[in-house]
Amino acid sequence: MHSKSLWAVLLAGGSGTRFWPASRRALPKQFLPIGGTRSLLATTAARLRGLVPWERTLVVTAREQVALVRKHLRKLPPDQILAEPAARNTAAAVAWAATEIERRDPGSVHAVLPSDHTIAPAADFRKALRAAAEEAEASGALLTFGIRPTFAATGYGWIEVGSPTSERRGESVSSVVRFVEKPDRPRAEAFLAGGRHLWNSGMFVWRTDAILRALREHAPALAEAFANARDASALDRVYAGLPSVSIDVAVLERSKDVRVIPARFRWNDVGSWSALAEVLDADGDGNLAAGGVQVLAEEAQGCTAWGRKGELTVLFGVRDLVVVRAGKATLVCPRERSQELKTIVDRLAKDGPSFL
Amino acid sequence: MHSKSLWAVLLAGGSGTRFWPASRRALPKQFLPIGGTRSLLATTAARLRGLVPWERTLVVTAREQVALVRKHLRKLPPDQILAEPAARNTAAAVAWAATEIERRDPGSVHAVLPSDHTIAPAADFRKALRAAAEEAEASGALLTFGIRPTFAATGYGWIEVGSPTSERRGESVSSVVRFVEKPDRPRAEAFLAGGRHLWNSGMFVWRTDAILRALREHAPALAEAFANARDASALDRVYAGLPSVSIDVAVLERSKDVRVIPARFRWNDVGSWSALAEVLDADGDGNLAAGGVQVLAEEAQGCTAWGRKGELTVLFGVRDLVVVRAGKATLVCPRERSQELKTIVDRLAKDGPSFL
Repeated sequence: MHSKSLWAVLLAGGSGTRFWPASRRALPKQFLPIGGTRSLLATTAARLRGLVPWERTLVVTAREQVALVRKHLRKLPPDQILAEPAARNTAAAVAWAATEIERRDPGSVHAVLPSDHTIAPAADFRKALRAAAEEAEASGALLTFGIRPTFAATGYGWIEVGSPTSERRGESVSSVVRFVEKPDRPRAEAFLAGGRHLWNSGMFVWRTDAILRALREHAPALAEAFANARDASALDRVYAGLPSVSIDVAVLERSKDVRVIPARFRWNDVGSWSALAEVLDADGDGNLAAGGVQVLAEEAQGCTAWGRKGELTVLFGVRDLVVVRAGKATLVCPRERSQELKTIVDRLAKDGPSFL
Repeated sequence: MHSKSLWAVLLAGGSGTRFWPASRRALPKQFLPIGGTRSLLATTAARLRGLVPWERTLVVTAREQVALVRKHLRKLPPDQILAEPAARNTAAAVAWAATEIERRDPGSVHAVLPSDHTIAPAADFRKALRAAAEEAEASGALLTFGIRPTFAATGYGWIEVGSPTSERRGESVSSVVRFVEKPDRPRAEAFLAGGRHLWNSGMFVWRTDAILRALREHAPALAEAFANARDASALDRVYAGLPSVSIDVAVLERSKDVRVIPARFRWNDVGSWSALAEVLDADGDGNLAAGGVQVLAEEAQGCTAWGRKGELTVLFGVRDLVVVRAGKATLVCPRERSQELKTIVDRLAKDGPSFL
């Protein structure tokens, strides 16, 4: 077992609209009960129980989402929330969280975890996290979890896996040769076929001093930014000057010692309504009810319905549709087009901004 | 112009679920803003303005719908509402209304009008109603309006038209040879092809003494039933003993002198969600918004959406669907299957009675 204390940083500042109308500007995906009865954020936090206590859990979120975070994580001490005044992608969030952790608990190890993915079984995840923490502590390397690809995804980052470096708690650790962000289709297909590539899960584990050193080396502005930013107006000034860049691009792609543990747990970033069918159980006809809604399906197949508890959606004689009811909005579209909601959201910005 | 005063009896006791979930047990179709911004009932009453004053308008409804009738017809004097303690089809309603009218204004003419149909233009309807009233007054015959058939309907009653009897205000009046209720398909097709048949609109005009005489002859129990039923408990007893039968079957099919005026106005009984497309204007892609909902259609065609004002329905990449949102229920089905809602309503009686 590792000797340094393990912290977790939950990234909860996302603001996408890929689950519109359930996710809205004021209620992003991580606050939705996707995957069960609790929000993705609450489930992400619960997954750490027994391994990382609340006092070592930080949540980075948008300033306007602090109340939501507190509502969904009632046991989180309020000063564990880092409220960003502006969205600056993951590098800023990681830099701020690392600075904070080093200040509060020098010499620790920490994990950086998106709060809007589904992962199961939780015990397998904790086991992998323990292994990564031990590897990070012992080696000083930056650890990432890689996901075995199931299709030639052009929207993900891919990791080229190098030679094995060690084995920890039954998890094999390998070096990372390189990161490839959103390859074109031929490359993605070659990666899938070649067997040497994994998807980048966006989950990282490292010693706090290691990521701070890497930031100083590859993104010195970020490394320095939070040293003296203790109040809201200082943070406003800091964020106004920060670049919007991912930690992958700012640091990981440029670092020499990055290692990867292939995930044995199931992982899904639930990127659209159609992905719900990958993480939830459907009935015998492939119809899915999520969010608490009651569904009555008659001669219906392959549909996904979302709504609140106490609501009813009747699917009669239809197939492969997404039917979402949230607030005063209702969405009906074919499942296979639910990735294209940006078209709708863009039109609403003009024709119905109150529904966004 | 006729000399007797003209009354109107609006039949507003219907309780169907063909517009579920917008129409429910507690909110039948006649109270919905189908066809515009006002309810069908309010529109039916408004159509009579200038011809029949509120003081000569009676509304027959179910006892539990009295408050709704008053809400939708604020100018109707409360004692013009006849509240039935039980549903007994149209013969009982007609008999009660005729008895009341004769008591209040002996020697009048009255029209019996369903309150859940669409009719336009209203001026054409009033002209036909005037013609029918004159013919009824002069002849003592029972008048009905016939609708030119547009398809071989097996769910309607048909009227075989006989020889012309007269012309009133440019409307031709003919004798009725016989009524045929819900013919089978070969007969309906023959009726359609033959050109001698019209649909029975369920709208009638007659002298009050003429319908009372016909009731005494063909349905004596109905004719006598309301003579002394002046309070609620007396009505309870009366209705408990009445047969449930239509005025068509109880009287018209058995009467010798029934006459018909072919309607020049447009008529639609709006029997299902798909019929909305026949009475409301769609956009260039055939998408229809009704009930007040805002619709955003993107690569969508031939859809009908229903919802309240302030709500939004997004139709994205779908076609020929009915999407209804009302209360806590949402319905999605192909337009051409919206006539089969009884299947759903029957299932809900077991699986979700609170949504009926």
